[in-house]
Amino acid sequence: MKKFVNDPLNYVPEMLKGIALANPDTLRYVPEYNLIMRADAPHDDKVSIIQGSGSGHEPAHVLTVGKGMLDGACPGDVFAAPPMDYVYETTKLLASPKGVLLLVNNYTGDRMAFDMAQEMSLADGVKVKTLFIDDDVSVKDSTYTVGRRGVAGNFFVMKAVGAASEAGAELDEIVRIGEKVNSVTRTMGLALSACTPPAKGAPLFELGDDEIEIGVGIHGEPGRRRATIAPANDLLDELLEPVVADLPFENGDRVALMINGLGGTPISELYILYGRAHEQLAAKGITVARSYVGEYCTSLDMAGASLTLVRLDDEIEDLLAAPAEIGARIF
Amino acid sequence: MKKFVNDPLNYVPEMLKGIALANPDTLRYVPEYNLIMRADAPHDDKVSIIQGSGSGHEPAHVLTVGKGMLDGACPGDVFAAPPMDYVYETTKLLASPKGVLLLVNNYTGDRMAFDMAQEMSLADGVKVKTLFIDDDVSVKDSTYTVGRRGVAGNFFVMKAVGAASEAGAELDEIVRIGEKVNSVTRTMGLALSACTPPAKGAPLFELGDDEIEIGVGIHGEPGRRRATIAPANDLLDELLEPVVADLPFENGDRVALMINGLGGTPISELYILYGRAHEQLAAKGITVARSYVGEYCTSLDMAGASLTLVRLDDEIEDLLAAPAEIGARIF
Repeated sequence: MKKFVNDPLNYVPEMLKGIALANPDTLRYVPEYNLIMRADAPHDDKVSIIQGSGSGHEPAHVLTVGKGMLDGACPGDVFAAPPMDYVYETTKLLASPKGVLLLVNNYTGDRMAFDMAQEMSLADGVKVKTLFIDDDVSVKDSTYTVGRRGVAGNFFVMKAVGAASEAGAELDEIVRIGEKVNSVTRTMGLALSACTPPAKGAPLFELGDDEIEIGVGIHGEPGRRRATIAPANDLLDELLEPVVADLPFENGDRVALMINGLGGTPISELYILYGRAHEQLAAKGITVARSYVGEYCTSLDMAGASLTLVRLDDEIEDLLAAPAEIGARIF
Repeated sequence: MKKFVNDPLNYVPEMLKGIALANPDTLRYVPEYNLIMRADAPHDDKVSIIQGSGSGHEPAHVLTVGKGMLDGACPGDVFAAPPMDYVYETTKLLASPKGVLLLVNNYTGDRMAFDMAQEMSLADGVKVKTLFIDDDVSVKDSTYTVGRRGVAGNFFVMKAVGAASEAGAELDEIVRIGEKVNSVTRTMGLALSACTPPAKGAPLFELGDDEIEIGVGIHGEPGRRRATIAPANDLLDELLEPVVADLPFENGDRVALMINGLGGTPISELYILYGRAHEQLAAKGITVARSYVGEYCTSLDMAGASLTLVRLDDEIEDLLAAPAEIGARIF
């Protein structure tokens, strides 16, 4: 294993410390709960938005904490749900009179931790609701999931509820918005290579020299099938067609299109995929109104990409266009 | 080779088309010269800033075109200098009465193309100057270079001259600023793996299972030495110490610190390196005033990272903090 790692057991804490040191004015790190939170949170006049999930998906979610998106993220270890008490303590720390919204990608371990934390927080008198994200069209159930998996499309839910919360919306209204965005968001991914979790020190699964996994999960879960490497356009079509057919997206729709890198794929390749997707959608009468190309939800160093579509209306488009100031930034 | 590629010969044009489709309001693509330019350039009241270089380093430089940074970038093929006529035609297209500044990373092929283009543009009556960037402390001369190589530190030169140009500074003043930033910027990089250029279809150089290249160039050029993989903190120190010693950076300095991913390394690992660098600098009495963690200048899918320091003064810090709107963005 050739990676920038000290003790694999300290991988997540060392990353979180680095994130806090790089954002001293805006973010605060609470080591006890793997918590990265806005330095100025909670706000009495704003619903707090919290996401947990496992680590290894950066920038999701510790680097999407900031004004206009998350108030806090308390991830578990690499590819592991956060312990229940991380979520519970984070919810208490970020409790606001206007309430707390917990965002949870749909994995069984995460649901369990967040359900228990919500129950305990409610018993403490905290106003808290939970919203599950399940945008992956690849498979119905999966290794760690009953129902669909939550993957890169969670970015759009975070962005929309974060913007609504920043604008002062009430908790029920924010839940409505989050559910609406989730209901029109669809994703599918593809792995060219496996990823290597630091504590394992070896690839998480085996792929042959010419083999790829179509529909892969963000923890390396199996997708729909193994296939042989093919030209980029063909691979893109393998992602686009199932995503379009699922909602379905139709002639006349306006969409946000995301090509998300899984960690080991260079930006140049993502733009080759983006160009193909944009043109294929245009040929179907679907207009790309907002574009997202880069790393949003990764799987450590996995080579590969996912494609997400969101059907836009004016409300969603305005929320996606609202400003935000987060750790994942170039300046 | 498992990559998202159609015809390797169309790798760069397909990427550029994708970039243009993703930024229809702000960027314009001129296929004849591999040119990505601001849709609203040139401006009569603003010096135009142009960067060429090879492709394969994205987001440098086609994704740093936009308000507050570059007016245009006309890269060559992967790891190849742009042909002279790309630079010449781009200079004519972006010619402004206030002048044109050509930014060139110091490689022999790039110098040759830009020198000739500048001469021809001057003969046409275009006011044009050239600024060379050579921030890499690793080796004095290199495979494709006489003198030091220009690497990820070019981001800071682009950002500073872009901000000055946006504020209306004259060409000579912008050259002064660019030379000043280059003179206080130092970088060194390290490869954990080789990269695979699409047209070659195989790794550009060989590294053993536990072997790394300290001081690697962004085209895979040899650095100072081969070494064995070691803990992240030790590897970071191998980059930091030569960079600090070179200027030298000293007790009392304020700096910008960049940890740049070379393409195949996940963000989580970059933040582990960042945390170590920040603390080691603090121990030397050097204050990190601005932080940059992510991909700025890559080498396709190479796993590895580089570290850049810039000694700040008020002028440089203000220019780096100025707003910019470029293709490399998360929203």
